[in-house]
Amino acid sequence: MQGERSIPLKGVRKARSLQAMSWLPAPQEPLLRVAVTGGTHGDELCGVFLARHWLRCPEELKRPSFSAIPILANPEASAICRRYVHKDLNRSFTSTFLNSKATPDEPYEVTRARELNQQLGPKASGQAFDFTLDLHNTTANMGACIITKANCSVFAMHMCRYLQLRSLELPCRVFLLQPSGETFNLDSVAKIGMALELGPQPHGVLRADRFSQMRALVAASLDFIQLFNQGTAFPAFEMEVYKNFGEEDFPRTEAGDLAGMVHPQLQDRDFEPLQPGAPIFQLFSGEDVLYQGDRTMYPIFINEAAYYKTHKAFIKTEKIMTSVPALPPLPSALTHSL
Amino acid sequence: MQGERSIPLKGVRKARSLQAMSWLPAPQEPLLRVAVTGGTHGDELCGVFLARHWLRCPEELKRPSFSAIPILANPEASAICRRYVHKDLNRSFTSTFLNSKATPDEPYEVTRARELNQQLGPKASGQAFDFTLDLHNTTANMGACIITKANCSVFAMHMCRYLQLRSLELPCRVFLLQPSGETFNLDSVAKIGMALELGPQPHGVLRADRFSQMRALVAASLDFIQLFNQGTAFPAFEMEVYKNFGEEDFPRTEAGDLAGMVHPQLQDRDFEPLQPGAPIFQLFSGEDVLYQGDRTMYPIFINEAAYYKTHKAFIKTEKIMTSVPALPPLPSALTHSL
Repeated sequence: MQGERSIPLKGVRKARSLQAMSWLPAPQEPLLRVAVTGGTHGDELCGVFLARHWLRCPEELKRPSFSAIPILANPEASAICRRYVHKDLNRSFTSTFLNSKATPDEPYEVTRARELNQQLGPKASGQAFDFTLDLHNTTANMGACIITKANCSVFAMHMCRYLQLRSLELPCRVFLLQPSGETFNLDSVAKIGMALELGPQPHGVLRADRFSQMRALVAASLDFIQLFNQGTAFPAFEMEVYKNFGEEDFPRTEAGDLAGMVHPQLQDRDFEPLQPGAPIFQLFSGEDVLYQGDRTMYPIFINEAAYYKTHKAFIKTEKIMTSVPALPPLPSALTHSL
Repeated sequence: MQGERSIPLKGVRKARSLQAMSWLPAPQEPLLRVAVTGGTHGDELCGVFLARHWLRCPEELKRPSFSAIPILANPEASAICRRYVHKDLNRSFTSTFLNSKATPDEPYEVTRARELNQQLGPKASGQAFDFTLDLHNTTANMGACIITKANCSVFAMHMCRYLQLRSLELPCRVFLLQPSGETFNLDSVAKIGMALELGPQPHGVLRADRFSQMRALVAASLDFIQLFNQGTAFPAFEMEVYKNFGEEDFPRTEAGDLAGMVHPQLQDRDFEPLQPGAPIFQLFSGEDVLYQGDRTMYPIFINEAAYYKTHKAFIKTEKIMTSVPALPPLPSALTHSL
């Protein structure tokens, strides 16, 4: 199968042809109000323990021009080592929840989303934080993956590029998320927000290798903000990015139970090309289920534990080569702060 | 470090010197009442989905001389994909719980333990099932591991040997559990019981490779019972086994929070020798914590998710070479049933 799964020349050519995308303009002021959030999902332990550590030792998040503040986003869920208490916090940052009046019996995460919106937002307002980085782990073999909205700032793309160049140990991909409606993630509250996914790591387990990798990537993101704030210019570049276009559920019985599992030939192959006709599931009865699509796609979040409940065996993406314009030096650079 | 961690000649010699152990005698009758239990922990998904599959298709557990019955041990915990609802079912098979009078507000798992004791026991009685195999997964890099009580039947040791010979894809170790008091595991209810651990697999995730490996090992265990029932003799042999002699908790702050994590040089090295002075933890502040013991040991269940709560970063074992006497042909063999 290995041979059949490698990228055909046609696929390479397609991926190499540049796709024009529109980016929001870069900030015109230094980024001074910066937050790093961990434990948005309480069982993704790199972020939980990094946030707790930084709350005790905040100097690690200090740079000459700013200090990032650490936040344990979902302390109640982190205390019981579960994804959430009542509902997924990272799906709760919509205007409906953020603008609702508090009630005594509302889900804990709705209360917490409102608190975080007070602290880091209000969302889509001029008072919102300049930048947030939200830390996540996944059971999928995603390596490092930066998730940002598809129409993000050119600044965010340059930060992605910087993190890729600094991430030597493991691949660092960029996933441009195209939500179907209003943004709902924690990082959507700040002016510029992104999430960092790191995997594989079982939920409820802290691996020293992932912890160090996440710590290094956070440090690099703060270094990049410092470079930007002090007036560094960054040249234009071309970059491979992944954009979602759908999801695939597990095969199920009529009663809705699982009838099979991710195929062993697909397991752990996040970001690798999947060709039409390749096996994607293995039924408990032994038969294979094949990918019925008509084009090569790049599955990600393959077999993520938290997505069984939301009926996602993986997320389908396309790989795109795009160009990002130069990031000019900040006119009001904080050169005096060095 | 790799060189420092390999087995020194002295260690090899020590492991190779035979240690006498006492085994309970082999059964004198064919084993006809056999159960395979999965989902004793509701988030260990190989057993959950194998049990569910076999409940729909029980013929896979049929052999000429007997049919094993599949049991979903903790259906409520499996339904919500958690280890347990109120308390750990696999710590509930003690006389205190099994002989207690049912009360309306007792933990669900106490009720369930009593039900399973009715179905498979009563524990330590002549009516108990002849054999149970209890299926588990671990986030630790344990490969396949058979867990049985230290003073088990010579029959159990021969089954372990048979499974080792049939487990070609991954190592299959034998862990002789020395409980500090009364046995409390589900498999202690049957006359002969053992647990099969398979890892690494994140809890809440079903991997096709682990699923197939577990399915093959269960099939092999039933094949062995069939061979025994039909009068096959098995010769004496020598075998490496692991015996627990302690546990190690994570480094913690004064408040009891984690202060560090399993060292990257120890992570995933279950069943490998650990020498005095080798690093076992990495503190969040950066320093290493070294193993203070005075002899080589073999850590297992390293960084198992479920053991954070019970203050175990790993279980300490010693490796022992022991001899197991021959298993003579069953006098009352069911040769007619073939």
